[in-house]
Amino acid sequence: MKRIAVDMDGVLADVYEQFFRLDEQATGKRKTLESVIGVMELEAFELGMQHVLSDNFFRTAPVMKDSQKILEQLNKQYEVFIVSSATEFPKSLTEKQAWLGEHFPFIGWKQMVFCGSKTIVQADIMIDDHFKNLNHFNGQTILFSQPHNQLTDAGKHTRVSTWKEIEHLLL
Amino acid sequence: MKRIAVDMDGVLADVYEQFFRLDEQATGKRKTLESVIGVMELEAFELGMQHVLSDNFFRTAPVMKDSQKILEQLNKQYEVFIVSSATEFPKSLTEKQAWLGEHFPFIGWKQMVFCGSKTIVQADIMIDDHFKNLNHFNGQTILFSQPHNQLTDAGKHTRVSTWKEIEHLLL
Repeated sequence: MKRIAVDMDGVLADVYEQFFRLDEQATGKRKTLESVIGVMELEAFELGMQHVLSDNFFRTAPVMKDSQKILEQLNKQYEVFIVSSATEFPKSLTEKQAWLGEHFPFIGWKQMVFCGSKTIVQADIMIDDHFKNLNHFNGQTILFSQPHNQLTDAGKHTRVSTWKEIEHLLL
Repeated sequence: MKRIAVDMDGVLADVYEQFFRLDEQATGKRKTLESVIGVMELEAFELGMQHVLSDNFFRTAPVMKDSQKILEQLNKQYEVFIVSSATEFPKSLTEKQAWLGEHFPFIGWKQMVFCGSKTIVQADIMIDDHFKNLNHFNGQTILFSQPHNQLTDAGKHTRVSTWKEIEHLLL
C-alpha cells in the first residue's frame, strides 16, 4: 500500500480564507485575491502574524472544498499520513489535532505528524502547497495551488488546483 | 551529516521516575523496581493511564541523567530530530514542546516531530526504548534500556543503559 503525506494548511485547511476573514474583521475591507498572489501569506496580510498567533486561528479554519470525501476515499486505498508544520506555533498543535478530529474523524492519531521540517518524512507521494517541502522529497510530488505559489513554475511537481484533480490523479 | 531520531519518553524523559512518584503519592508506598520489570508501563502502574492523562504529567517529567550535555554534543555533529509518540494523548503535545524548550533549549522547533507511528521517520540512527519503533527502522538502532524491555533480547539492536554509553557509541 503506497503511503501519502498530506499537508494541512493550504491543502486541507483553507488558511487563505481564514486570513481574508480576519483581515476584513480588523480593517473593515476585504482584500482582493489579486493583491495576495505571488506573496507569502505572512507578507500578504499585514496583521498575518498576529492572526496566526491568536487563539483558534487553526481551530476554526475552513475546510478545503471536497477534501473530506476525497481524503476518506484515499484513506481506504493508501496509507495516509497528515503531516503538518506546526511546532513553529506551539499553540497550534492541539488546535490542529482537534480540527482534524472534527473534520476528518476517519484519520486516527497514528496517522498524524506535527513537525517543523518535513525532510524527515518517508513516503511515496507528498501533497503540499510549499516548494520548500516538495523540493527535497524523493517520491511523487503534488503541488496544491495557493496564491503564494501561483506565479512560480511547478517544475517537476504536478500542480493541482482542487481536490477533484487529486481524485482524478490518485483514485 | 548523519541524522539521528531521538525518542523522548524513556530516553530523554524519565517517565518511570514520574510514574513511581505519582504512584507513591496516590498509594503512600513506593513500588520496587523489580515489580515493574518486563511489564509495559501502563500495566505495571495500576493508575498509570490516569496519571498519563493528568495535567503536567509530561511537562514535569524528570530529565534522564547526562542526556542534556551529551545530546548538546550530538547536536553539533549530527542532524538531530526529537521524535516523540504524542498524538495518542493530545494534551501532551504542547507539554512536550514546552518541556523540550526548558531542558533542551538548543533543540529548535524545526527539529521536533510529534507523531503517532514512527514508521514515517527517515533517518540514519534511531534511539528508542520500544521495539515497535526500532524493529521497522532501516538504519542503526539503539535500544535504550528501560524496565519494560529488560527481559527481551535486544536482537539486532544495540542495547545501552545510560547516556554515557550513547556518548561512547556516537561521539
